[in-house]
Amino acid sequence: MIMPGGKPTMFMSILMFGEPGADILYPDPGFPIYRSMIEFTGARPVPVPIREENGFAFSAEETLKLITPQTRLLIINSPANPTGGVTPKAEVDKLVAGLEKWPDVAIMSDEIYDHMVYDGETHVCLLSYPSIRDRLILLNGWSKTYAMTGWRLGYAVWPGKLYDYARKLAVNLHSCVNASAQYAGLAALKGPQDEVRKMVAEFDKRRKVVVEGLEQIARRLLRDAQRARSTRSRTSSARAGRPRRSASSLLEDAGVAIIGGPDFGILGEGYVRLSYANSTENILKALDRMGEFLSNRKAA
Amino acid sequence: MIMPGGKPTMFMSILMFGEPGADILYPDPGFPIYRSMIEFTGARPVPVPIREENGFAFSAEETLKLITPQTRLLIINSPANPTGGVTPKAEVDKLVAGLEKWPDVAIMSDEIYDHMVYDGETHVCLLSYPSIRDRLILLNGWSKTYAMTGWRLGYAVWPGKLYDYARKLAVNLHSCVNASAQYAGLAALKGPQDEVRKMVAEFDKRRKVVVEGLEQIARRLLRDAQRARSTRSRTSSARAGRPRRSASSLLEDAGVAIIGGPDFGILGEGYVRLSYANSTENILKALDRMGEFLSNRKAA
Repeated sequence: MIMPGGKPTMFMSILMFGEPGADILYPDPGFPIYRSMIEFTGARPVPVPIREENGFAFSAEETLKLITPQTRLLIINSPANPTGGVTPKAEVDKLVAGLEKWPDVAIMSDEIYDHMVYDGETHVCLLSYPSIRDRLILLNGWSKTYAMTGWRLGYAVWPGKLYDYARKLAVNLHSCVNASAQYAGLAALKGPQDEVRKMVAEFDKRRKVVVEGLEQIARRLLRDAQRARSTRSRTSSARAGRPRRSASSLLEDAGVAIIGGPDFGILGEGYVRLSYANSTENILKALDRMGEFLSNRKAA
Repeated sequence: MIMPGGKPTMFMSILMFGEPGADILYPDPGFPIYRSMIEFTGARPVPVPIREENGFAFSAEETLKLITPQTRLLIINSPANPTGGVTPKAEVDKLVAGLEKWPDVAIMSDEIYDHMVYDGETHVCLLSYPSIRDRLILLNGWSKTYAMTGWRLGYAVWPGKLYDYARKLAVNLHSCVNASAQYAGLAALKGPQDEVRKMVAEFDKRRKVVVEGLEQIARRLLRDAQRARSTRSRTSSARAGRPRRSASSLLEDAGVAIIGGPDFGILGEGYVRLSYANSTENILKALDRMGEFLSNRKAA
């Protein structure tokens, strides 16, 4: 089913299963809208931890342990937003095997970042597992792969038994998707895919620019801190440890927009999110300003 | 707020006020989605009769009598779908005056057909009444006035106290509206409006073609019936009186798509809806086929 973006699929799946007394599992840190939609329906949002020690991907074991008879829907998202973590195939296999014990739990797999994999990692599409096919909702779209965010063009694959409900909701909610966007979507799919590969390679470069830049900043801060310690000046580690507040002062004082980890969930505490969907030139400028900003704060 | 079509405004307003124990008033016959959305929220759908004797427009008195302390939202739609009825200003004045006694009832005014008025009738926009401004949701869009149905482009005017809730729902539901459609919408608004007037004049002509064609069919049927009576053959008025069944056999046997009145509500019984959003040539062809179809049935 063609959808006006990715969110309508999230919204519709969560509306289908969310009600008071139901549990819905969602990744934390994760796309903030999962939780807000779950709360909207009155269901209980149960965060599935996405941990740094698991490469910022979900752990099958930890996910399965959170399922109870109250669980109606499990939302998974690999490659993950905001962490970029990709769950390895062995882990997905384990999850699917474990889900066979819970035949009444529906799965909404948000695979919108399926092409955004780096360092030889591979994305595993959940549609490739026949045992969960009859309760799997697949979310995908054009926004990331084809950089068509503003077109509001997504798609969902619904299992047969949910299709009628999904169709009814879609007719009532949005009728159909903007017609010219549908033609643009067709052109994107039928055209040469070189641009997609080029863009992913370009993102990979920018990603490395960000990582390298952050490492440089860290080295500089460490050097400054060592120098400061030797002159007995005080550093304020408490302030640097509040990602939400740091994010807004970074925006206001240095003009660099990042997002504090807690905006993505409880487990986002202590992290910030940097987007590299911008030119390398701008990314370098932002890193410079971040370095200045942080070393001034440390010195203050 | 720019919306992806008209329905998202309906859906969002009904979601805001609909819950078990709440009453929502909606026009009957009317756009079928009002009722289906109300039922979805668990609220009680209370039909406001749209009667032929009132020129197929709502009666202020009848509407006001249906309001109770359980009423949360009143949906009005003038010019009306599917009847085309336009509520005269005096009647709207009366409704607004009566609503002052019910300050907790929100109003969603679906004015998507505001330019589709004929025979010197005038549309009254509910935004022109300051006394209800703080609880009025206005629905409008590009679909009808600019024939941009497939663009999915609508807008809503929300009162200040509902705006934050509306914004939050919009962010969660659809993020924003397709960007190219927004530019198209701007071009439609800023461009010359002659086309709108030309199209309404053209619709007016086609409307008259439909009315004249139906009158001809009726005269022919009457003549046939008189002839049949004189030869004692029987006519089956019961079959002709079932608009839903007639509509589907008309489609299957004669290839003409009309909609049975009951698809628009309880009070649609005994009516059918004909669309004249097609070329005069096709309308004439459809009328011919309808005439054939009906006189064959009468003769059978």
